[in-house]
Amino acid sequence: MSRFLHPKYAALEAYTPGEQPRDRRYVKLNTNESPYPPSPEVTAALSQTDVEELRLYSDPEGKALKEKLAWYYGCRAENVFLSNGSDEILNFAFMAFGAAGAVFPKPTYSFYPVFAQLHGVDYREIPLKADFSLDVERLCGTGRFTVLANPNAPTGLAVGLDSIRKILDSNPEQVVLVDEAYVDFGAESAAELIGQYPNLLVVMTYSKSRSMAGARLGFALGDPALIADLERLKYSTNPYNVNRLTLKLGAAAVDSALYFVENAKRIIATRERTAGALREMGFTFPASQANFLFLSRKNLPGEVLYQKLKARGVLVRHFSDPSLADYNRVSIGTDEEMGIFLRETRAILEEEGLL
Amino acid sequence: MSRFLHPKYAALEAYTPGEQPRDRRYVKLNTNESPYPPSPEVTAALSQTDVEELRLYSDPEGKALKEKLAWYYGCRAENVFLSNGSDEILNFAFMAFGAAGAVFPKPTYSFYPVFAQLHGVDYREIPLKADFSLDVERLCGTGRFTVLANPNAPTGLAVGLDSIRKILDSNPEQVVLVDEAYVDFGAESAAELIGQYPNLLVVMTYSKSRSMAGARLGFALGDPALIADLERLKYSTNPYNVNRLTLKLGAAAVDSALYFVENAKRIIATRERTAGALREMGFTFPASQANFLFLSRKNLPGEVLYQKLKARGVLVRHFSDPSLADYNRVSIGTDEEMGIFLRETRAILEEEGLL
Repeated sequence: MSRFLHPKYAALEAYTPGEQPRDRRYVKLNTNESPYPPSPEVTAALSQTDVEELRLYSDPEGKALKEKLAWYYGCRAENVFLSNGSDEILNFAFMAFGAAGAVFPKPTYSFYPVFAQLHGVDYREIPLKADFSLDVERLCGTGRFTVLANPNAPTGLAVGLDSIRKILDSNPEQVVLVDEAYVDFGAESAAELIGQYPNLLVVMTYSKSRSMAGARLGFALGDPALIADLERLKYSTNPYNVNRLTLKLGAAAVDSALYFVENAKRIIATRERTAGALREMGFTFPASQANFLFLSRKNLPGEVLYQKLKARGVLVRHFSDPSLADYNRVSIGTDEEMGIFLRETRAILEEEGLL
Repeated sequence: MSRFLHPKYAALEAYTPGEQPRDRRYVKLNTNESPYPPSPEVTAALSQTDVEELRLYSDPEGKALKEKLAWYYGCRAENVFLSNGSDEILNFAFMAFGAAGAVFPKPTYSFYPVFAQLHGVDYREIPLKADFSLDVERLCGTGRFTVLANPNAPTGLAVGLDSIRKILDSNPEQVVLVDEAYVDFGAESAAELIGQYPNLLVVMTYSKSRSMAGARLGFALGDPALIADLERLKYSTNPYNVNRLTLKLGAAAVDSALYFVENAKRIIATRERTAGALREMGFTFPASQANFLFLSRKNLPGEVLYQKLKARGVLVRHFSDPSLADYNRVSIGTDEEMGIFLRETRAILEEEGLL
């Protein structure tokens, strides 16, 4: 920290993204990326001309992509906001809608408290129940900007639209943001509710099911007035926030949407096979509807499993939060990758005298 | 604006980027893009594999690109910050360094007051002198975060490093940000001063001389402590702010740096030829060291020239600020494009009875 930094950020603790190690090749199961490449239509989308035309700014309105996404989700372009990854939307939303404070579950995506601190938004965390399920009652009528990951991270558990409606109905004067980064792996999307709730903002990403984490593309669906608020912040920070190549690739991905839906099915099948094998080894975890499992096992500290897997070339995500010390979050890769993960995990259990 | 928006943004007026019209093809001289494509090394840099690997997040540290830029500018990777276009750095800098208020010239890049308003930073504008030159004395010792575009926009005038040093020396407890978006078209870069001034932040972009506006890449050079402040804000908003393809293309551009230096020379030559022809037609303008000219002409309101050129298929930038009503900012395109611009301008002058 320099002596020039605004004192309001002196205590700010930034988010820690998953490791991106460069020291060796890992079976990388730590950042919930897709193990499959983008669709053939996406990988074939860029021409020499597209790269030459990088001399020109991107369309700040992202009109062509908005129209495609609107078509796919059955809404209109004015219901769609585009961003440089969905974290950018979350950041804008905490700025825009946190005037009366924010509320979100705990544990959840560990970036939410960072956004709140950054923008001086007072926040309350509602603990999940003992079985990691959402305490829907306590999230109702808080009078605060409400942020819900559905499915939740790092637990993987989802709630139905009945619960989302309950929270929306009980908070008509506050925005309810549903972060659907992992929705394509088995949960119900609240996108169909946007016409009914002016206070609903649904946030999605190309980083998970659509296999485009490195392209940086997120989007939000909501009432045109909410979208206009986000646009105002975007045009006050970074009007050309999505680059030209990503706009084009993002449109190609909508054109080949069946591909990512099929991939999500494959990942779900791999998840269920992996879950079965882990259960046999004595692991417990919530019934994930995401592309990861949130594991723990009696007599095996989370940190030990994380370190030993890393030494064996398998990278999973361990969190520094002491309340999560027993756990690791393991992304679902290909069947082959999960085979390696299971083999190494079994070897560690044997080493530890646990099998 | 929705009823949910934080009241502190109620009066915020967002930045208005230059038009990106889709209705017809224009000779587009309104957003200071380069008329030349990126280097052959850049246009050849992307392989099928790069697009397939978009399934993975980008390196949040941008290590490879930082090292290349550090090599090119004779500093170290810890002196370099990478961003999704340089506007993102300006935004972070107003957040980080505006505690004691900000100061900048007027007119200048019209985004600065927007950043200040967005983050509640009190700002003071120091008018340029009558000849559009910078009032260096009045920028000294203000005790405020100082933001200087050098060359300045929309005037195109630059100051030498002696003036920059004076401002830095007089404000040791405040950051002085030198926005060098246009520096490659004839001005002196302050990059060589970063080792001497812990309060100096130099901001550069790939959008102008490097022909990569659509790739969204900016960078800052400064003391490691200042860079760490920017990194802290980045990791609190959008850790993967630069996408994979842009990181790779940005590195290829450093490898072929001679190309962009040669292009800048061509643009300077075209600028001087254009300036000569405009002078003959009675236009006046400051001696630009950027890739644009800031024109006015007796008896010809700026809005009239802008509208008539647009009707004739030539797009230039006219500003809504009433104090700039007489002017238009015209980007320097290819010789051919400037030939069209000059021909149409001449026709308009004849139409108006001014030639």
